[in-house]
Amino acid sequence: MLHSLLVSLVILAAVVSLVQADPPKVVLAIHGGTAGPRSELSPELEKLVRADMQRALEAGHVVLNKPDGTALDAVEAAVRVLENSPHFNAGKGSVFTHEGQIEMDASIMDGSNLKAGAVASVTVIKNPITAARAVMDKTRHVLLIGRGAEVFAAKAGLETVDPAYFWTERRWNQIKKIWEREAKERAEAKQARADSAADEPWGTVGAVARDARGNLAAATSTGGRTNKMYGRVGDSPIVGAGTYAENGVCAVSGTGEGEFFIRYAVGHDIATLMKYKGLSLDAATTEVIIGKLQPAGGEGGVVSIDAEGNFAAPYNTPGLYRGYITADGKSKVMLYED
Amino acid sequence: MLHSLLVSLVILAAVVSLVQADPPKVVLAIHGGTAGPRSELSPELEKLVRADMQRALEAGHVVLNKPDGTALDAVEAAVRVLENSPHFNAGKGSVFTHEGQIEMDASIMDGSNLKAGAVASVTVIKNPITAARAVMDKTRHVLLIGRGAEVFAAKAGLETVDPAYFWTERRWNQIKKIWEREAKERAEAKQARADSAADEPWGTVGAVARDARGNLAAATSTGGRTNKMYGRVGDSPIVGAGTYAENGVCAVSGTGEGEFFIRYAVGHDIATLMKYKGLSLDAATTEVIIGKLQPAGGEGGVVSIDAEGNFAAPYNTPGLYRGYITADGKSKVMLYED
Repeated sequence: MLHSLLVSLVILAAVVSLVQADPPKVVLAIHGGTAGPRSELSPELEKLVRADMQRALEAGHVVLNKPDGTALDAVEAAVRVLENSPHFNAGKGSVFTHEGQIEMDASIMDGSNLKAGAVASVTVIKNPITAARAVMDKTRHVLLIGRGAEVFAAKAGLETVDPAYFWTERRWNQIKKIWEREAKERAEAKQARADSAADEPWGTVGAVARDARGNLAAATSTGGRTNKMYGRVGDSPIVGAGTYAENGVCAVSGTGEGEFFIRYAVGHDIATLMKYKGLSLDAATTEVIIGKLQPAGGEGGVVSIDAEGNFAAPYNTPGLYRGYITADGKSKVMLYED
Repeated sequence: MLHSLLVSLVILAAVVSLVQADPPKVVLAIHGGTAGPRSELSPELEKLVRADMQRALEAGHVVLNKPDGTALDAVEAAVRVLENSPHFNAGKGSVFTHEGQIEMDASIMDGSNLKAGAVASVTVIKNPITAARAVMDKTRHVLLIGRGAEVFAAKAGLETVDPAYFWTERRWNQIKKIWEREAKERAEAKQARADSAADEPWGTVGAVARDARGNLAAATSTGGRTNKMYGRVGDSPIVGAGTYAENGVCAVSGTGEGEFFIRYAVGHDIATLMKYKGLSLDAATTEVIIGKLQPAGGEGGVVSIDAEGNFAAPYNTPGLYRGYITADGKSKVMLYED
C-alpha cells in the first residue's frame, strides 16, 4: 500500500514536471519593440500597452480560428492593431525624422512560398503592413518606396490619411527634446550628434504565426528610428533582415538597431543556423541576438516561432514588449523579465 | 639519355597539368549583368562591352597593387568605371522606369567588419556606388533612399548631374518599345502587362575583391529593371541579397531578377552554406543559383570569390558578363560559355 502510494507519487511528480517542462505550442507571437529602462514606463502607460498587445494577439487568433485562416492573414491582422495604437512606433505612434516628418517601413513574408512584400519611407498610408501585403499580392515586385509606393497603395484602394494623423504629443516631445539639445550643442560649438540617443530611439511592431496547415508567416512595421536622417531605411522592410519566414524552419520579426539587423541578415541567419547547422530555434535566436549582435554593439531582439510552435524571444536590451497566444487561446504578454 | 628525356617529359606533363588544373587566384572579379541571347549582341557592341570590362578590372587592380590598397577601394573603383560606361545598366547606362525616369540603386560591403552602405531610387547622383560608400563611411545608417539620399550625397560633396545625363538612345528605345506594345495591348482590350519582357529587362554591375591582407569586399550598382514601377527597389541595395562580403568566407555580387534575390537572401545564403554547412564557394553558389533560384523561376547569376581567391560565377541565363583578374594582372573577360 505504502509502496503503491510512493509509486503513484513518483509518477505524479514525473507528470507534473513533464507538464511544467512542456513549452506552450504557440500559434501567434507579437512584439511591440524593445523597451527602455523599466523606471521610465509609468503604470498607466504599461496598462494601455498591455491592453493593445492583448487585442493584437486576439485579432490574430480570431483569424487563425477560421476554417481557412492563414498565418499570413493572422500576422497582418495583429500588426494592424499595433499600427492603429498610439503606443508603438509604427503607424499611428510613429516617431519623427530629424526633419520632423513621419516615414514608415513595413514588410510581410509568406513562409509557404517565400513570397514577400515591403514598403519603405511612406508617409500617408494608414496601415503600411497592408501596403506591404498589396505589393506582395498585386505586383511582381517585393519592395516599393516613397511616393511610388504611395501612388500604388492609393490605386490599390488602401486607406490614406493626412500626415497629421500620425502626429502624437509623446513622439513630438521626443524629437523637440533632441532638437533643443542639438541646438544647445551647436551653440556650445560641440559637434551635434546626428543620432543622439533618445529615451526610446527605435521601436517596431511585428508578428509571427503558424496556421493549422503548418504555414509560417512574419510581418514587421515601424516608424523607424527617432531623429533618423531623411530617407533612412532600416531593417523592417528588408526581407532576411527584420522579417523572415520559411515553412518547416521558422518565422522571425525583429526590432532594434536596424543597421545591425541588415548587416547581420538577422532573420535569414537564424533560419540558416537551424537549416544548415541543426540548431534549435532557441539556440539559433540566442546565437544571433546575444552571441553576435550584442558583442558588435547592436541592440535589439526578435520574436520567433518554429514549425512546432516553439517560441523564442531573446533580446539584449532592458526589455522587449512581447506576447504569444496558443491554439486554445491562452495568451501571455511580457515587457521585461517577467 | 632516352630515359632521362622520358623522365623530363613526364615531369613537364605533370607541371603542365598542374598549371592547367590549378585555378587562378583571383583578387578582383566583376560582372556587367546577365546577357540575353548571343544573337542579339552585335560584334561592335561586344567589343565595346569587353573593353570597358577590361578597364574596370584594371582600375580595381591598380588600387590593389598600391601598398595600402584595400578590397573596399578596389570594388568601388571597378564599379565606378562600369557606372560611367553607357553599356551597362548602372549609372550612365541605366534603364528607364515605367514612368520614363531613371532610378538607381547601389550598395557596398566591407567584409572585414561587416559594415555596409547603400542608396536606393536616386536620380541625380553620377556614381551611386560612391554615395553608398559615403553612407557607410559618414553616417550611422546603412540605407538611404530617394531625395534624402540625394541631399546627403550633395552635402557630402559627391558629383551630381542633370537627370538628362543618364539618357541613352538604346535604353530610350527599349522603354518606347514597351510603351508602344502596352498601348497596342490596351487598344486591343488586353490587359497591359506591367512587367512585359524587354529584350534585356534587368542588368547590374558589380565587383568583388580580396586584398593583400585577406580582406574581402563587394559592391553592386544598377539602374534596376526596365519598365519597373515607380519606387521599385530590387536586390542591389540590399545587403545580404545582391551584395555580401565577410572575411574568411566570401564576397558576392548578384545580378538578375532582384525580387528573387531578396526573397532567397542570395548573398547571405551563399555565405551561410559555406560557414554552416562547409560547402565550397563553387558548390554554394551553384546550389543557390542553379539548385534554388532556377526551379523557382528566378533568373540571374553572381560573381564571387572566397578567402583563397577561388572564383565562381554560375548563372541560369543565356550568359553573364563577367571577368576576373589575378594578383599578377592576368585577366579574363567572358560573356557566354567561353
